[in-house]
Amino acid sequence: MKNAFYAQSGGVTAVINASACGVIETARKHSDKIGTVYAGQNGIIGALTENLIDTSKESDADISALKHTPSGGFGSCRYKMKSLEDNKAEYERLIEVFKAHDIGYFFYNGGGDSADTCLKVSQLSESMGYPIQAIHVPKTVDNDLPVTDNCPGFGSVAKYIAVSTMEASFDVASMCATSTKIFVLEVMGRHAGWIAAAGGLVDDSIPVVILFPEVDFDEKKFLAKVDANVKEFGYCTVVVSEGTKWADGRFLAEQGTRDDFGHAQLGGAAPVVANLIKDALGHKYHWAVADYLQRAARHLSSKSDVEQAYALGEAAVNLAMEGKNSVMPAVIRTSNNPYTWEIGMGELKDIANVEKMMPMDYISDDGFGITDACREYLQPLIEGEDYPPYKNGLPDYVVMKKEMVEKKLPSFEV
Amino acid sequence: MKNAFYAQSGGVTAVINASACGVIETARKHSDKIGTVYAGQNGIIGALTENLIDTSKESDADISALKHTPSGGFGSCRYKMKSLEDNKAEYERLIEVFKAHDIGYFFYNGGGDSADTCLKVSQLSESMGYPIQAIHVPKTVDNDLPVTDNCPGFGSVAKYIAVSTMEASFDVASMCATSTKIFVLEVMGRHAGWIAAAGGLVDDSIPVVILFPEVDFDEKKFLAKVDANVKEFGYCTVVVSEGTKWADGRFLAEQGTRDDFGHAQLGGAAPVVANLIKDALGHKYHWAVADYLQRAARHLSSKSDVEQAYALGEAAVNLAMEGKNSVMPAVIRTSNNPYTWEIGMGELKDIANVEKMMPMDYISDDGFGITDACREYLQPLIEGEDYPPYKNGLPDYVVMKKEMVEKKLPSFEV
Repeated sequence: MKNAFYAQSGGVTAVINASACGVIETARKHSDKIGTVYAGQNGIIGALTENLIDTSKESDADISALKHTPSGGFGSCRYKMKSLEDNKAEYERLIEVFKAHDIGYFFYNGGGDSADTCLKVSQLSESMGYPIQAIHVPKTVDNDLPVTDNCPGFGSVAKYIAVSTMEASFDVASMCATSTKIFVLEVMGRHAGWIAAAGGLVDDSIPVVILFPEVDFDEKKFLAKVDANVKEFGYCTVVVSEGTKWADGRFLAEQGTRDDFGHAQLGGAAPVVANLIKDALGHKYHWAVADYLQRAARHLSSKSDVEQAYALGEAAVNLAMEGKNSVMPAVIRTSNNPYTWEIGMGELKDIANVEKMMPMDYISDDGFGITDACREYLQPLIEGEDYPPYKNGLPDYVVMKKEMVEKKLPSFEV
Repeated sequence: MKNAFYAQSGGVTAVINASACGVIETARKHSDKIGTVYAGQNGIIGALTENLIDTSKESDADISALKHTPSGGFGSCRYKMKSLEDNKAEYERLIEVFKAHDIGYFFYNGGGDSADTCLKVSQLSESMGYPIQAIHVPKTVDNDLPVTDNCPGFGSVAKYIAVSTMEASFDVASMCATSTKIFVLEVMGRHAGWIAAAGGLVDDSIPVVILFPEVDFDEKKFLAKVDANVKEFGYCTVVVSEGTKWADGRFLAEQGTRDDFGHAQLGGAAPVVANLIKDALGHKYHWAVADYLQRAARHLSSKSDVEQAYALGEAAVNLAMEGKNSVMPAVIRTSNNPYTWEIGMGELKDIANVEKMMPMDYISDDGFGITDACREYLQPLIEGEDYPPYKNGLPDYVVMKKEMVEKKLPSFEV
């Protein structure tokens, strides 16, 4: 009976631990076919350095609590393995570690780059004669993986941005007669505007202007739109993606200035946008940068996101039990309204390094809003609340014990 | 039977509408003694311009929904009335409007400046021969009013900051081996560090450094503290108040630089702090500015805050029914653990323009954290969750119909 290896990769999310929970709880149910689940300490680096966490030492209750805990419970990392040709030593090391700990299942929980690593690992049996079944578990707040209807982590960020946009707009609306008229919220998304699009999920009675990375920033048109909103509604909310660019390709956040010490001025697209409005229209403004708060906000996760994250972890183990290799379980949308979905499967060769951008017909003609098609797609992903338990006013998140497996091999530098 | 006037003043909060709900629901229960509650459209300006909202036209269900809706349901304003001597015309106008609409009760929902206005209005009967009972309903995220144990609005901001600090710290902790080691969260509080202090409510296992407006920023000491945390924990979270200042009195957010167009560089204490750390210690950082998100976050309000906001609105009407004038209902803490409280009363002369700063014994000796005394004070204020209802994935907040009362007087410029 083979053991399993599970690792978290790249930027973490509010629900990646729900996938971990799905993997581990399901593996525990199949204890006749699958041995211990070892988790990489800090992702794939944990495999390379033989820093393996023995998840069998974590209690059922603690593993279950992962379902409502944000972040990477076992540690994640930003580390892209090179190709087999460019760094064969790393793959050989992986095999050594897998052999030493009798690992036959590899579950890799990440985004596009990680799907690529997972694909390479899945090929070890062929290319290097080591039998392994590698299954990728999708995850990314950027929502940019193909095949799956959406990516775990995204629905919760979308809910956070939609709710925050709504709440701040209510605030501004109630003060705009004598105070702030402009509120700018900066959100994540360097390449794709999925997260920014979520700001468009608020009711039409709230005037929201969205700046997408997909649309070149047209200052004149933007200011005219903001001006029109202030005249009609008394105020305007702007949701700006950190990836919004001028027509010449520079990010808005690149301010091109230096401070007293000669350092490049720090970014933040929100203050740039706010200042442009102030200069042109004279309105009082406020701005916020949500940054990590948006992807860590498990307190406001969407129920469908949590359920899908768990289901995909569960499905990964089931696919492994069925003998699959080099695949990723995926969410398949079977109906829009009511939203129904089932678990399907994609081949890693169709997923690795493929970026799913926002379709242009999801962006309104003027470039500042979302279309009905986009709303129809996004709406179900923010549905439902799934509150964590609280203790003393704070969420009762779990921290893993992280008992390490005894090392059997010489050390290895990454 | 006299009518009542209710107005919201200054920056809004997540729970000021719960106080409005308390005032209006309680007045409705006393319909034998109190007539219609008129709400000022956009605060006191609504009284001066005779823009009165007839709250009797709002349904019971909508008034009840105010309890879970952030922002100022009737509109607030930033407008400080001058003294009687400096602008007698405004007070004469108020009396004209009150007379025209037979208003005998004045409920003013605001902070320190508003308590001062409320005090002046309460004196109209004496100084200008118009009988009125003026009751102040406390409100401010800054928590800077005396007499009351705390101010409605603050507990919810504190909960938001504590939860956000916790969640972002979990995120950074899980990635710090190979990625971001520093997370900086900028919070409100230009004069008092109450909100920043809430960042200290997270568990001791999370390394949080707090920068208070009350403590001069000592760059060297700060960097040493951050460095020690990174060495011990692998990462460090910084909660910086927007009001943090250098020893010479300049705000950290004043960056003293100009952009390509010669405009003063936009503020944000968080990027300044993050950059100082990067330059000195070389760590990768992320920063967030919570801004309005923190005070509008009704989705994460504390239950005790919501209950107290409502109770103070209710008490204001009861005090009026008892014939009181020139007073403010207040929360009196009767026990710390378990937290119990009752409604007491303060005199406006003891409240107007008095700012309650954070006691210095609430700040740890090194100036970067909170003491046990502070934790004991703050902890109960973030206790309990009070979720709004949701519809289509978003909070189901109410928007008032705002049916206006017919004007009877000539217009008046403010």
